[in-house]
Amino acid sequence: MSRTMRGAVLYGPGDVRFEERDLPRIVEPTDAVIRVSATCVCGSDLWPYRGISPVAQPTPMGHEYCGIVEEVGHAVASIRPGQFVIGSFFASDNTCPHCTAGYQTSCQHKEVVSGAQAGRLRVPLADGTLVATPDLPSDELIPSLLTLSDVMGTGWFAAVAADVKPGVTVAVVGDGAVGLLGVLSARLMGADRIVAMSRHPSRQKLAREFGATDVVSERGDGGVARVKELTKGVGADAVLECVGTHDAMMQAICSTRPGGSVGYVGVPHGVELDGQELFFAHVHLHGGPTQIRRRHD
Amino acid sequence: MSRTMRGAVLYGPGDVRFEERDLPRIVEPTDAVIRVSATCVCGSDLWPYRGISPVAQPTPMGHEYCGIVEEVGHAVASIRPGQFVIGSFFASDNTCPHCTAGYQTSCQHKEVVSGAQAGRLRVPLADGTLVATPDLPSDELIPSLLTLSDVMGTGWFAAVAADVKPGVTVAVVGDGAVGLLGVLSARLMGADRIVAMSRHPSRQKLAREFGATDVVSERGDGGVARVKELTKGVGADAVLECVGTHDAMMQAICSTRPGGSVGYVGVPHGVELDGQELFFAHVHLHGGPTQIRRRHD
Repeated sequence: MSRTMRGAVLYGPGDVRFEERDLPRIVEPTDAVIRVSATCVCGSDLWPYRGISPVAQPTPMGHEYCGIVEEVGHAVASIRPGQFVIGSFFASDNTCPHCTAGYQTSCQHKEVVSGAQAGRLRVPLADGTLVATPDLPSDELIPSLLTLSDVMGTGWFAAVAADVKPGVTVAVVGDGAVGLLGVLSARLMGADRIVAMSRHPSRQKLAREFGATDVVSERGDGGVARVKELTKGVGADAVLECVGTHDAMMQAICSTRPGGSVGYVGVPHGVELDGQELFFAHVHLHGGPTQIRRRHD
Repeated sequence: MSRTMRGAVLYGPGDVRFEERDLPRIVEPTDAVIRVSATCVCGSDLWPYRGISPVAQPTPMGHEYCGIVEEVGHAVASIRPGQFVIGSFFASDNTCPHCTAGYQTSCQHKEVVSGAQAGRLRVPLADGTLVATPDLPSDELIPSLLTLSDVMGTGWFAAVAADVKPGVTVAVVGDGAVGLLGVLSARLMGADRIVAMSRHPSRQKLAREFGATDVVSERGDGGVARVKELTKGVGADAVLECVGTHDAMMQAICSTRPGGSVGYVGVPHGVELDGQELFFAHVHLHGGPTQIRRRHD
């Protein structure tokens, strides 16, 4: 049996190589090794790829994944070889105080999972990180299940963090996978009106399919003005920030009514919030890396 | 009858003059003029007094006040001459969408009230801004009622914004009037443990009288470490930021457990929040000017 596999490795801006890597193996007794069924590129991969975040050393890529368990360490209790599992980009023990409070991606023992864009992947803290499906899914279902490993959970957490409730008016800043799934999440949570901020026709179409009632193509101050106009000068009850830039964050804050909530899930790059501006905005602010492993039922 | 009165006016850093000023009169039909029974200096007065905030022109001082109504405009319906009233530093109509959502200090028609450190004060939007007591209070009660016009409401709002609930662990950054009343508010809301951050013996004593269970004299990283130590490495559920400096804000954020809440009411001066730091802190952030006029029953 071969001791190597092929995997994607980021060497620097624009420099991704698909090359021979050692097959991962169980290192800690709490590890699992899975055979990757599906993986993808995340928006956050683009920051180092574009040279906006530094790349210190060649880094195996990929943190969105699902697959079949091949092997588990002797301390793994709930995950078994042969199961189909979905994982998170941060491994968590799911037993520490932060995990039990529902903040698994702030686990006291969290570890970064990386290298999923390969045939095999080592996942630390398997019991706390992986969720098994009851049965092996059909091939058609796998792409949908893959979204649960990051983008769907991230859009959902944006809506949770923005305190979306039945009947409220929501605005979503960002029309990438996360923003569109934020629209879908807000719809599932019973939002009455959902304003998607998007200037791409294909994404506007998808936003409407996912439940957007209004589409606004303006950005920045123009975007804020349109949301105010649509809400009789009041602002949205809940705004989902799904980009991570300073402009997107300010657009989200300024589109929110006093007492309303901003849920932000775009990994911030260059975001600096002025205390006094925030003070007089009177908004609730919550966000961060999503809790893939949190149970929302 | 004299057409003038004596009042405090800030001319510049360290330059306060007690001088003749015109008696205020009804300007808008929604105004009231009150005879000030008690007023005081606010922590926020100290920023311009110390030269940290600019003083563009001579400014009548004072925005914490209570007193007897002398005269009202013809459109005032609920406030009558002779009543004892307590007011807010921002006038609000208490009918706009922001007011009815409980954010009166973001009222769509808000006006700054200033000049209370004088014999008489004009209060705009009297129906929405002033609250009358059922009877005329005794002289002994007046200083306590005066606190409701700012510091008590501000400490209370810090605890509301930090989502203090029965049984939680609270930390309070700042041991001025607002911080101490934040301690009292957290106690009234049923907090189980209240850590007061204070290095002044007289304030530590008052903090304990108001309900603090622990006192921590360290600041900055040392203060954060002590709160973590007192909470078995987890952090406080709710942290009240009652200062307004960058260091106090960062101390509050870093003392909070992931998923916990920071309520900030210190008027920010030089506070700049790094988006990525906030992202990975996983805290809820809410605050701003308190809602003196909000009903909390």
